[in-house]
Amino acid sequence: MTKWVYTFGDGKAEGSAEMRNLLGGKGANLAEMSRIGVPVPPGFTISTEVCTHYYRNGDTYPAGLTDQVEEALKGVEATIGASFGDPVNPLLVSVRSGARASMPGMMDTVLNLGLNDITVEGLAKRANDERFAYDSYRRFIQMYSDVVLGVEHHLFEDILDETKRDVGVAQDTDLSASDWKGLVERYKAMVEAELGRPFPQDVHDQMWGAIGAVFGSWMNQRAITYRRLHSIPESWGTAVTVQSMVFGNMGEDCATGVAFTRDPSTGENAFYGEYLVNAQGEDVVAGIRTPQHLTIKGKEKHGSSLPSMQEVMPTLFDDLVKIRGILEAHYKDMQDMEFTIQQGKLWMLQTRNGKRTVAASVKIAVDMVGEGLLTKEEAVLRVEPQQLDQLLHPTLDPKAPRIVLAKGLPASPGAASGRVVFTAAEAEVWAKRGEAVILARTETSPEDIGGMHVAEGVLTTRGGMTSHAAVVARGMGTPCVAGAGEIRIDYKAKELRVRDSVVKEGDVITLDGSTGEVMLGKVPTIRPELTGDFAALMSWVDEVRTMKVRANAETPLDAEVARRFGAEGIGLCRTEHMFFDPARIISMREMILARNEQGRRAALAKLLPFQRKDFVDLFTIMKGLPVTVRLLDPPLHEFLPNSEAEQEEVAAASGVDVATVKATVALLHETNPMLGHRGCRLGVTYPEIYEMQARAILEAAVEVSKASGVTVVPEIMIPLIMGKIELDMMKAVVDAVAADVFATTGMTLVYQVGTMIELPRAALRAGDIAQSAEFFSFGTNDLTQTTMGMSRDDAGNFLEIYRQKGVVDADPFATLDQDGVGELVKIAAERGRATRPDIKLGICGEHGGDPASVAFCQSVGLDYVSCSPYRVPIARLAAAQAVLKQKRA
Amino acid sequence: MTKWVYTFGDGKAEGSAEMRNLLGGKGANLAEMSRIGVPVPPGFTISTEVCTHYYRNGDTYPAGLTDQVEEALKGVEATIGASFGDPVNPLLVSVRSGARASMPGMMDTVLNLGLNDITVEGLAKRANDERFAYDSYRRFIQMYSDVVLGVEHHLFEDILDETKRDVGVAQDTDLSASDWKGLVERYKAMVEAELGRPFPQDVHDQMWGAIGAVFGSWMNQRAITYRRLHSIPESWGTAVTVQSMVFGNMGEDCATGVAFTRDPSTGENAFYGEYLVNAQGEDVVAGIRTPQHLTIKGKEKHGSSLPSMQEVMPTLFDDLVKIRGILEAHYKDMQDMEFTIQQGKLWMLQTRNGKRTVAASVKIAVDMVGEGLLTKEEAVLRVEPQQLDQLLHPTLDPKAPRIVLAKGLPASPGAASGRVVFTAAEAEVWAKRGEAVILARTETSPEDIGGMHVAEGVLTTRGGMTSHAAVVARGMGTPCVAGAGEIRIDYKAKELRVRDSVVKEGDVITLDGSTGEVMLGKVPTIRPELTGDFAALMSWVDEVRTMKVRANAETPLDAEVARRFGAEGIGLCRTEHMFFDPARIISMREMILARNEQGRRAALAKLLPFQRKDFVDLFTIMKGLPVTVRLLDPPLHEFLPNSEAEQEEVAAASGVDVATVKATVALLHETNPMLGHRGCRLGVTYPEIYEMQARAILEAAVEVSKASGVTVVPEIMIPLIMGKIELDMMKAVVDAVAADVFATTGMTLVYQVGTMIELPRAALRAGDIAQSAEFFSFGTNDLTQTTMGMSRDDAGNFLEIYRQKGVVDADPFATLDQDGVGELVKIAAERGRATRPDIKLGICGEHGGDPASVAFCQSVGLDYVSCSPYRVPIARLAAAQAVLKQKRA
Repeated sequence: MTKWVYTFGDGKAEGSAEMRNLLGGKGANLAEMSRIGVPVPPGFTISTEVCTHYYRNGDTYPAGLTDQVEEALKGVEATIGASFGDPVNPLLVSVRSGARASMPGMMDTVLNLGLNDITVEGLAKRANDERFAYDSYRRFIQMYSDVVLGVEHHLFEDILDETKRDVGVAQDTDLSASDWKGLVERYKAMVEAELGRPFPQDVHDQMWGAIGAVFGSWMNQRAITYRRLHSIPESWGTAVTVQSMVFGNMGEDCATGVAFTRDPSTGENAFYGEYLVNAQGEDVVAGIRTPQHLTIKGKEKHGSSLPSMQEVMPTLFDDLVKIRGILEAHYKDMQDMEFTIQQGKLWMLQTRNGKRTVAASVKIAVDMVGEGLLTKEEAVLRVEPQQLDQLLHPTLDPKAPRIVLAKGLPASPGAASGRVVFTAAEAEVWAKRGEAVILARTETSPEDIGGMHVAEGVLTTRGGMTSHAAVVARGMGTPCVAGAGEIRIDYKAKELRVRDSVVKEGDVITLDGSTGEVMLGKVPTIRPELTGDFAALMSWVDEVRTMKVRANAETPLDAEVARRFGAEGIGLCRTEHMFFDPARIISMREMILARNEQGRRAALAKLLPFQRKDFVDLFTIMKGLPVTVRLLDPPLHEFLPNSEAEQEEVAAASGVDVATVKATVALLHETNPMLGHRGCRLGVTYPEIYEMQARAILEAAVEVSKASGVTVVPEIMIPLIMGKIELDMMKAVVDAVAADVFATTGMTLVYQVGTMIELPRAALRAGDIAQSAEFFSFGTNDLTQTTMGMSRDDAGNFLEIYRQKGVVDADPFATLDQDGVGELVKIAAERGRATRPDIKLGICGEHGGDPASVAFCQSVGLDYVSCSPYRVPIARLAAAQAVLKQKRA
Repeated sequence: MTKWVYTFGDGKAEGSAEMRNLLGGKGANLAEMSRIGVPVPPGFTISTEVCTHYYRNGDTYPAGLTDQVEEALKGVEATIGASFGDPVNPLLVSVRSGARASMPGMMDTVLNLGLNDITVEGLAKRANDERFAYDSYRRFIQMYSDVVLGVEHHLFEDILDETKRDVGVAQDTDLSASDWKGLVERYKAMVEAELGRPFPQDVHDQMWGAIGAVFGSWMNQRAITYRRLHSIPESWGTAVTVQSMVFGNMGEDCATGVAFTRDPSTGENAFYGEYLVNAQGEDVVAGIRTPQHLTIKGKEKHGSSLPSMQEVMPTLFDDLVKIRGILEAHYKDMQDMEFTIQQGKLWMLQTRNGKRTVAASVKIAVDMVGEGLLTKEEAVLRVEPQQLDQLLHPTLDPKAPRIVLAKGLPASPGAASGRVVFTAAEAEVWAKRGEAVILARTETSPEDIGGMHVAEGVLTTRGGMTSHAAVVARGMGTPCVAGAGEIRIDYKAKELRVRDSVVKEGDVITLDGSTGEVMLGKVPTIRPELTGDFAALMSWVDEVRTMKVRANAETPLDAEVARRFGAEGIGLCRTEHMFFDPARIISMREMILARNEQGRRAALAKLLPFQRKDFVDLFTIMKGLPVTVRLLDPPLHEFLPNSEAEQEEVAAASGVDVATVKATVALLHETNPMLGHRGCRLGVTYPEIYEMQARAILEAAVEVSKASGVTVVPEIMIPLIMGKIELDMMKAVVDAVAADVFATTGMTLVYQVGTMIELPRAALRAGDIAQSAEFFSFGTNDLTQTTMGMSRDDAGNFLEIYRQKGVVDADPFATLDQDGVGELVKIAAERGRATRPDIKLGICGEHGGDPASVAFCQSVGLDYVSCSPYRVPIARLAAAQAVLKQKRA
């Protein structure tokens, strides 16, 4: 005889966690808990094979099922000490679906099954609460009629509304036991009128009705659609779990509570939780009564005057502590448990891995290695890389009061307070005299870099998670709230307004870049701690991972932060950021305004010493670690101001007339600057620019190598190529400069020339390009923009709608679009390697710091990822996890 | 004994055109001419195998070569009646390289070889021209010394300059025979001083020296580089051709001339050419003497008073006429021949397919089919599709005088005159009162469409071949000169200026969109003729081709032009062009300014009747041919004006305040509109827009089907999708509308829903997309922009430099980039077909009218190409040629 039914309860089970395919997720989990000796309310699971049989055989059950169910039900009755349909001590059950894959809300559930006109009285007496019993009964009638009998939901609502009107109350909670009793009668009458037969009073009929409804719900439209969207085969079928209900509100020997096996805030290995005597589970959550602590220690710590469970129910508390031990030993993770005590007996309703702060997450993982519960590799998998970000920045003191002014996007994590200023120039002035400032702008542009650098935090009223402000701030590790649309900035009045509030220049505000909140005044913050558990975990991370992690950095400060966070080189040094310094932008503008090559060369000669110094600093800090320098990338118009006043200044400073400046601005204007005259297109047009940059890099490399004795291996990167020819032309420029520098200095260095792969065409032509390129760095920001035809600056307008409507799962600028952009990365990696097997492959877009994208990079076999300095630890952890997950798969 | 040397001349040859690999291009061609009985100056070719032997065996010649060369030389002497090195009647020869593939200018040539101190006197006497003989000798010394002996060129220039200074003349032509004689002595002395040995006087030494130098030149740096760039294998080697020199300036029984076998301007089957008695070839070209006509008919036609060759040298003329017949019969194409008569003997120096006007090209091809010289398929291959454009538009009367004011890009072919106006609105006003106008703008935008439609021609001072003005004008078939940078337009003064010239509003100018010229006043034009030979050729074209050709059209006028030019449907109807009409843009703006869906629906309801009428007109004209309608594509900000004054108008017309208009303009502003909120992103955001459009299309289809009895099969196209989900969402909108329209009208029609493939991601996801799409239309404009990361509007800034520096061969917006964009098209076609084998594939970018791109489409197996109405015949011809070339390959 085939086994169709699997029982659990009483510290035993016929199933286990491994039998998910047969018992569904829920059934397997309950069996597992029971199997390891945890007291769960007894029950049984009808297997998915019954579902399959049901649909293959014209909605009929297999032979023997009825007997096996009756048999199992008897076991439940014995374990719980109550009988199904018994007038005095009735057993109530829940009937739930449970598929192999979770399908939340897609299929039906019936609770409190077993209630009828007679058993309801038994329940009322045992609970000593008539109101509770009739409320349960009316809920059961409504749920059962809806799910099993197909009576429309609103008919019940109508009657309920009517009843409240008759009684003259507004809330359900104001209805008395007799009101519910009356309602039950009206419900039953309505159901009978609708169906032409009375509501079933036979509890076995109820149960089989519910079982049939659950199997039937496998083929309802919602479930079919859900399966189609999530690629779940119809053939899997669903299981049905019938489980006894337990109640924590049947007297003073009853209770209900939740517990964490360790402190979810700190990770401390201390039992933690709350409970309420004579209460339902909802009461703990709803906050109607004040929950009491489980332990004496917890009570004392939180200064509670209410007695702890340890004191009130010491034996049951000991049982719970034992279960805590069993569960942690079994699941090897901190558990979040729900329990109910029914008349002196402890039942565990659920256990699952507990949510925790990231600090707790790290501490628990490290502690569990110490306790022998986890291996180092398992510990590495226990911390969510994305969360790590919270550890690396100052955070707001959670206890401090705050006045939230507005909310924007959490664009760059961390919290900061300062006096608000509205221009980058002001920010620099105020910062120079020692003030902590917050720079608030409608949006930022490359001209604001100086001000952003000195600001404690950046606030914008326009732009998304990948706007200029957000990207640059994340790169700098500066907290940023972007796109706070409620705020209006008035530059003339030097103030910002949110509805009626006005914040004037110099007023203090606080930003929380992790939540997007903008607060009035100073809110105290807590500094991050990078030693101890964090350091231990990261050392295991580094043992595991195979990809290198570099940082995107151009300033000495960035480079130092990157080193401190464990970066193994610089993957992207954006040379243009170096030209916005006030001392340099004059020469840069002079170069742009020059009439001919000679004029450009004269201006470039002035920039050379600055640029060389930049690289000397970087190479010195990086002590021989690889540094990839990208030559000039942005369109030249970014270096010229748009306002008339500033144009006049530029004209004066550069010694040309305003008309020339205006004409140049007009000439350089572009409709789609993202797709314009930038990247190597500048190098092809004005090779002298790249020549100067190559000279600065190579002269600096020689200087630092000579001075430090550590050989610098610069990697020179050409941006935005479409194919091999551009790279060859620019490589020729670099090679010629190198020959000259080496001849002049008498020192020859190894250097590499490679390219960004950031246009679809470059990805497709990677086979040719690799003939000349010694490395590829995937510029996935631009590659995403071009592959998806979506401007990072403008996508905010529709990307949110796309997310809401399910067109995209995630912001493709934050998490790599593996199906589209990812295929191009794969193609380029394959073709590049086919030509040059040892070509070095890396990624330097924003995605380099996104865990899902890092996992993708591992799967493609990239050599390194490069990201903002503050995301280096995240990338390290993600890279390690990717290795472990790859091993498992 | 291996044969190393192949002779030709005297109406015979040992080689032929097929022996290109052995004899090189030049040697094979000369052999072919001789073989078919054409009198070419005799000579012989040393095969490429000698070259191979030479390099394989340490720069030595194979055994037997010397004997074979001497033997061949004797044959030449016999044929020409002169002897190599003979003091009285010296044979002079040329020594030239000739590889299998043409390598122009890469290898060396020596002329007049055989001259020395003695034979120069013989030449002087026979030519009766001492000056000519010594000029030839000094040229020979210079050339030979440079090529064979390695004496630097400038040394000869120095001596020549010195001599002129001594004699006191400025020009070479002012030097006398004795001056040249003296120069020869100084040359020889210098060479002897440089080399330490005298200039070779032995003519055989001269010949072997030259042969060695030609073989040596195969490995010079220029040749190596050229071969690398053009993928020519080194192993091919070069041949060496030694040929007797002939002179047309040795007396009154000598002459030289050029002839076309048919009239190259008209194609008329009439012998045509010019000649000069006692002259060198250069004299005919240089224009020092007035050339005379070959035929009496030619002389009379051109009103020349000089006697024709037919009269002066009737026998030789008859010989030439015979050769004309031989050559046309043999080469089956109109020939451009060069001939020389030396002392009463006719020699043919060269023949090649003659250049001709496109009208001549068509006439010759059609005539030759009639004459049995060509098959229809061969005739189809004889006309350059690109050139056809000239036949389809009015052209300037070539005889009419003209004052060229400025030159821009030839952006849309054809010529037009009219009174210049500077705004689209003025253009419409003037046109309404019956004036022919030319619209001149700095650049155009979609708002100018109305004005462009009524203008005879469009002139812009900014933008390239693919600027808005250029693309739209080509689509309309309106002549356009774009980017005429010398012109400054002053909108306030209503005038344009070019240096000192001023053209005021209302002044007449003429544009030639085929040359880019802008002219003052009216220049008369000639109307195109599309019947006769053109019609005959196109009927053969349509027999051959397998791809359909559709047109991009949205107005009834466009659709009618398209039909007249043979379009087999509409491949792209851009619905947004329909919204710029003044009667409609008000509702469109009202829709954009609406606060909510209800407001948008109210405005859309006003647009519906207009839009339905558009489709009724189109479907009626297209009589059941397929019509692909693209739903709204451009970003909404294109419909709002930028100037304050216009914004005020819009506010008044739409019943909102100016602040709202300004706020909306600001809100809709995009940094990179090309990558912004457009295409189906609008449909996903505001489904009601696409709903209205789908309703208009389907209601119109039903109306026309009912009225005409011809069933309309509309193809509804969703633009700018990134993947399947967007298409599914928009298809659901269309399907819902269709169900409603069919229910309401009581008529059900077949309609298709498909998509543009215009983003790299869509191309990569084509497999999924084809599950829902019934057709793909490749939007290669946008696909090029995104794949190459290059904005069509901004590329002008660097694309020209890219072309000059050889980074790109052609404008990728004009000719499809097959290596990059093309691979994505291929990938999408393959993946699309794998999912849905009968999916309809077409292209609707600008490339649909470009012959090279059309050939690519044929190779990928697309079902159709769609292009501007005026390019339909070009696409038809290109599609036919692609079939024929594919068959051959």
